[in-house]
Formats: sequence, structure tokens, C-alpha cells
Amino acid sequence: MWTRIGRCFSPVRLNAGSYWSLQQLGKTPRHHRWNQTLASPFSEAPRPRKNDSLGIRHACALEPDRQLKVQWEDGSNSLYPLVWLRDNCQCPQCMLQSAKARSLHLSQLDIHTGVDRVLVKEPNKLSVVWPDQHASEYDADWLKKRCFSPVARQAMREELFLNERVYWGSELRIPSAIFQEVLEDDKAALDCFTALRRVGIVYLKGAPREQGEVAKLSKRIGFLRLTFYGHTFQVQDKLDANNVAYTAGDLSLHTDYPALQHPPGVQVLHCLHQAKEGGESEVVDGFHVAQQLWQENPEAFRTLSSLTVDFTDTGVDYCDFSIQSKHRIIEVDGNGLVLRINYNNATRDSVLDLPLQHVQPFYASLRAYVDLMRRPENVLTYRMEPGDMVIFDNWRLLHGRRRYSMDPEHPRHLEGAYLEWDVVMSRLRLLQKAVHEDR
Amino acid sequence: MWTRIGRCFSPVRLNAGSYWSLQQLGKTPRHHRWNQTLASPFSEAPRPRKNDSLGIRHACALEPDRQLKVQWEDGSNSLYPLVWLRDNCQCPQCMLQSAKARSLHLSQLDIHTGVDRVLVKEPNKLSVVWPDQHASEYDADWLKKRCFSPVARQAMREELFLNERVYWGSELRIPSAIFQEVLEDDKAALDCFTALRRVGIVYLKGAPREQGEVAKLSKRIGFLRLTFYGHTFQVQDKLDANNVAYTAGDLSLHTDYPALQHPPGVQVLHCLHQAKEGGESEVVDGFHVAQQLWQENPEAFRTLSSLTVDFTDTGVDYCDFSIQSKHRIIEVDGNGLVLRINYNNATRDSVLDLPLQHVQPFYASLRAYVDLMRRPENVLTYRMEPGDMVIFDNWRLLHGRRRYSMDPEHPRHLEGAYLEWDVVMSRLRLLQKAVHEDR
Repeated sequence: MWTRIGRCFSPVRLNAGSYWSLQQLGKTPRHHRWNQTLASPFSEAPRPRKNDSLGIRHACALEPDRQLKVQWEDGSNSLYPLVWLRDNCQCPQCMLQSAKARSLHLSQLDIHTGVDRVLVKEPNKLSVVWPDQHASEYDADWLKKRCFSPVARQAMREELFLNERVYWGSELRIPSAIFQEVLEDDKAALDCFTALRRVGIVYLKGAPREQGEVAKLSKRIGFLRLTFYGHTFQVQDKLDANNVAYTAGDLSLHTDYPALQHPPGVQVLHCLHQAKEGGESEVVDGFHVAQQLWQENPEAFRTLSSLTVDFTDTGVDYCDFSIQSKHRIIEVDGNGLVLRINYNNATRDSVLDLPLQHVQPFYASLRAYVDLMRRPENVLTYRMEPGDMVIFDNWRLLHGRRRYSMDPEHPRHLEGAYLEWDVVMSRLRLLQKAVHEDR
Repeated sequence: MWTRIGRCFSPVRLNAGSYWSLQQLGKTPRHHRWNQTLASPFSEAPRPRKNDSLGIRHACALEPDRQLKVQWEDGSNSLYPLVWLRDNCQCPQCMLQSAKARSLHLSQLDIHTGVDRVLVKEPNKLSVVWPDQHASEYDADWLKKRCFSPVARQAMREELFLNERVYWGSELRIPSAIFQEVLEDDKAALDCFTALRRVGIVYLKGAPREQGEVAKLSKRIGFLRLTFYGHTFQVQDKLDANNVAYTAGDLSLHTDYPALQHPPGVQVLHCLHQAKEGGESEVVDGFHVAQQLWQENPEAFRTLSSLTVDFTDTGVDYCDFSIQSKHRIIEVDGNGLVLRINYNNATRDSVLDLPLQHVQPFYASLRAYVDLMRRPENVLTYRMEPGDMVIFDNWRLLHGRRRYSMDPEHPRHLEGAYLEWDVVMSRLRLLQKAVHEDR
């Protein structure tokens, strides 16, 4: 399928930015990878390991520690807390099989449970009989994947969340594919959404030049996220624009909709008509630039990742609305990892809920981040033509648009839609399963 | 309108739980209030102050500090950083008036700006001329509300977010209203959604006994949140149930959908048919119980508010799905305030991404929290009858259901729907404005 895309659609260079075939993605230098570490949000992460199928050689309970020790056929060991094993009994009494959900209540769980007998029936089956004679059986592969070692946990995280990222700058050739193939072919869709996750942006060529195509793509994935701007939104120059995007002016680099507490994870834009002059798109890898900020100006990084800023949006569109939120512009998790960029200068509220002495450092830090974003080596510029569709990670990328000339007879027109990362990742996991089972 | 609801629907006592008229809400003892403090997530918060309209007596620039000092008519002072004033110029050049959004780019902002002239034209207008002769004008009320003092900022937070909470236990009489009045009358709707925010649960009586009423209520508010379980969902005993809720078994106390990264903020349940025996509803104030945990077992509170736990949900409903999330069971913000409870034992994943030594403390802490939840003084039990509708804060309340007897001819049936807190809060702000302007 890759080969086919590669053959159908050879990379083309447009403006400063450019596209590459998804086929080539594996060959790109990986600038940086994502990592789960306390020390730095950006250092190297181990690549996820394949889970090799291994039988159980031996298993025994370590009663004083309330753990069970499994020795694998290769001689390595894994330790499992007894309470976790009892909690995750896979029998029909403890689990509703049709929902693959736990029916055992926490109040029924003896958190200090011992064990009566441990048996390795076959190399791939562990059997545990509990003091009340309830019996549990565990599959060796299932257990191995759930090993509590740091390496196994990192591999599981990567398998479930695909958190590894490829950082980029203006040199990026945007991974591209054919719209219709992504709709129809599972392998093409899997590669497309994997690139979206890893790189943060993918380009689809050849979509019909009419409204409704972003909805079609969303249905392929799962479903759209409805917002106050409607199921899909029409990016055009509008009279009495209720959003700065609905003008012909330039849009500075921003993420969409930080005025929502949970901004949309993924944005789709489909070009129906382009302006004769201007209207080029600009994108920046917000995680990459956050890393640069962290290296060049750690104090500014700390300021933007600790102070909360208000965002606001009021008006009428799908219905009347008046929304408010508070976000850190660089949102990091409890481990110091960057999770999301929340920044739109247009909807940053005049309400600034900071102690007076934090106001000047806040502006200085934001200015440092914005100046870094705007460095030519960070900004990728491209120009959408009718039929082009772009999908990007709105939690990671900042996007902007250059001013354009208005032509009332052929007005510039993009149709847009939002999706949740949960919905895109769900499709990605299902596609992985479907494509691998096909093999 | 309150009086009318009070007269139409006098409080009735059902089981251990009970209802009270919304009219009485103001009289209830306020167990605890929400607070913005670093010391404790639960201590007393100042009540929001009304913003009294005050003229400006005098204003001058404090050049070395790059601040502007405003003296109000009552002799009090406010300080405003010059950069913030310049950033929030309200003129048509710096702001797109139709969108009430900033059009001034951050890169155009001189973050070290001085000032040329400051003028108080009238007591309610401040005029600032900047070194480049750009002129800005600020309304006194607008400025006063945006004062950077802790008291003014707390008042603004409360005005925008209504974060003050009334905590409760089994003694709660659930605020109640008439379904049709909430649909038609702005004051009734405002009181209903304010009670939902403050108390976390409201009861609506007299909804037609047919499907589609939760959608009607959602349209009154804004719009539903679509999930993998559909626009609305039918809580019934189902063959091959894809969710433990779709059985006749008891459901232990849980929040809905922690397998989503952003679980639904508000849940609506409408009773169409009740079981002959069993099927009573149980609710618990998760914030109140978190406070109890923090007081009785601070180590367990710290464990549940720092360790992340995996949730999972796979199946087919609106479409096929495979979702994964990581949450702290007690989610606190950077200031240590409890924001959300994320807990559903059915969808808590068998994948537990914790270092081995954290597993036993995790189970012990969760058990301590669950044991507190289940204390009789914390659990409010009520029984829905056909036509009853309940709306509750799914970020705060845990809800459960007692086992019920199946009757194939008259199956128990609730219809449910989710909404975003952003959407409910938006309606609340708009209703506040509408009701106040009506006066």
C-alpha cells in the first residue's frame, strides 16, 4: 500500500514547506523522542519492545511480600502483587465477559489476600487458588505484558498511547496520502493516523471539492466533535465575524479553542477555494519549540508551564455561547512532560488572574515563546489548493494564516472540523488490530 | 418563580434520601466551601464581592515599576501593569469588535512599554496615550473588575466559574424543580443550573414518560456530548451487555466514563420505567468524601491524588471503540484543589502502570476512599419514578444502583445523556445575564 501511495503521489515541493510520501516517514531523522522521565520533558525514550511469547517455567508465592514470582522460560523473572492478581481474576464471576469489564467490586476485594495454591498447568497458563478456594487463571502472554518492570511498563504505554514523537522545523516534508485510499484502505488509514500521531500533521490529496468531505473523513475515524461553531465550520471572510478566523486578515500562530477546558485534539481543514493572493498556511511544532524554550530560557518555560491564563469566547453560532477557561500555555503532566499547548492570542482574556508581580514575567515568557515560534527555521509554510485536506494535532501544533486578497466572486473557503484524540486513538488501535490480524 | 416551584412541589421524603425545593437552597447550612488556597483543598473561601461602581479620582504612571496607579473615589487604589493595559487596548484597531477578540498580535506588543500621557477625562473613563501616540481608553467598571488584588481576583473567579460548593451527605434534600418550567422559564433554569453547580445534583419532576426528553433538556442548555454510547443511551438490561450498566446487577459507586481523557462533566438520567423491586439510585458527594479522606487518612489522599491509574473501554455501540486513559482517581489542580473524581471499578484497567512498591499502597488507599464513600452517612439513596429526571455533576458525584428484579414485559428503562461543563456553564452565564437584565 505504501509503495502504491509512493508511486501515485511523489513528493512535491511547495513554498518553504514540502510534502513527503508516508512511505518515507521511517527514513526521517528522529530529532527527538518523547519520554516518561522526571528529569527532562524531552530526553530520549526507549523504543517500545515487542512482547515475545514466552512460557512460564516456574511460579511461587512470596508470602511475606504478598507477591507472586513468575520465572519465564528464558530465565527472567516477574513479580506480581497478590492483590493485583485477585483484583484482575478473569473468570465470568469476576468479569462481565461481554463488556470485558470488572464486575468484582472493590469492597469485595481482600487487599491483604494470601494464596492457597499456585499451579503452572501448561507453560502458558498460571492457575491460582485463593484461601476461599476461588480459582483464577491467567494467560502467560497477558501476564508478561502486565509485568511491573519499568521496561515492560514503558512498552505497554507506548503500545497503548503511541507517545513517541518526531519533532521538526521548516525542513519538514509533510507526510501525505490520497484521500480516497485513507477512506477505503485500512493500511493506508493506519499509516496516515500513525503519522498524525508521530509527526502531528498529515496531508491528504484529491478530496472532492465540495462541503461534507471533512464529515466523511470523521465518520471513517468515528465521529466529529460538535462545538459552539457547529458540527463543521466554514472558514471564510464573514460580515460581523464572530471569530478572527472569519476575516481576511493574517492569523498569528495559535492553537484552536483554548477557551474550552478540553480543546479539540485534532483539527481537519479542507480547501474548497483558495485566494488568488495570500492565504498561505503556517504551522509550527509547539512541542519542539517548547523544548527549545526549555533549553534556551528555562525560567520562561517554568513560567508558562506553571501560571494559568484565562481564555474567553462569547458570541452566537451553533447557539449563543459564553465560555471561559484557565490553562497553562505549556501544559505539562505530573512528570513534567509536555501534554498540550494552549495558546490563542485572540481569545486570551483581558481578565488576567495573576498576582501583580507575575504579570511582567508572564509577558516576557510568552514573548520569548512566541519569538521562538516565529523563527524561520521553525515555521513551515504551505499553500492549500482546492481538494487538499490537512489533519493536524491541535494539542501540539500552532497554526496561522497569511492575509489574503478578497474576491467576492470566488471567496476563499476552507471547511473545518474537530475530533477528539480519544476517538482518533481508538480508530488507530482498531486499525492496528485489523491490519495485524490481516497478516 | 421560586415561590411558584415551592408551592407546586413541596419537598417529599423518599427512603433515606429526600428532595428540597430549590427555593430553600439558600437556607441550607453550608458544610464547606470551595477555596483557592495552597494549604488545603477544602478551607473556607471568601464569598464573591459585588463590584460596586466607583469613579476614578486620580491616575498616574509609576514609571520605574512600569505600572499605572488608579485612585478610586472611595480612596482605595489599584495598580495595573502598563504592558497589560497596552495588551488590552479596546480600540477597533487592537480588537475585532464583532468577535470581542484581540486582533493585536503579541509580536506587535512592546512588553517594556512606557507611557506618554494619562488622563481621567470623566470619572468613569481612563485615557492612556502611548509613546507612539496610539491612544487607549478604559471604562472604570471594566478596570475595577480586573484589579490585580487577591480579593478582586477571587471575586472574578467566582463570578466566572461559580466554584463555591455546598458539601453534603445522606441528609441532603435534593434541590428539585418542574421539568417544563426549567425548559420555559429563564429564572427557573438559572436556579436549577446554579444548584447543579453548587450542590452537584438537581431533580426535575414531571417530564413526559417517553424517549427524547433528555435531548430536549440538552437543547435548552446547548447541546449533548456524543460518545461511543451514542447521542443518548438506553440504560436497560441487555443481551451481551457492552457495559455493566446494561445489566440488572448492582452497580457500585462510580463516575461515568473515566476511560475518556475528558470524562463528561454532567449526566442526565430520565426514568421511563422503574423495576417493581430494587433499582434504587445511590449518590455520594465525591468531593466531600475526598475531604474526609484528606482529614482521616492524608497519606491515602496523597496517593490517590498523585498516582495515575489506567482505564479502558472496548466494544461496539455508536461505532466500534477501543479507548484508554490515565487518571488520578482524585484529580487536583496545581494549587492542590480537587477538580474531579475519576473512578469506575468496572473500567479500571488490568494494566496498572505503577512501580511494584506502589501497588499495595494504591489498593489500600483506594479501599480507604471506597470504604468512606460507602459509610451510611455519606450515601444518599432515592428511587426514580417514571417522569423523574436527575441531573448531576459527573466530575464530583459517584453514583450507583441497587440490583433490580427483571420483568420482561415492563423492563426498567432510563434514558441518559452527557453534557460538557463548558456548555452548562455557558448557559448559566447567559441566563445570569438575561435574568439580571430583565430586572
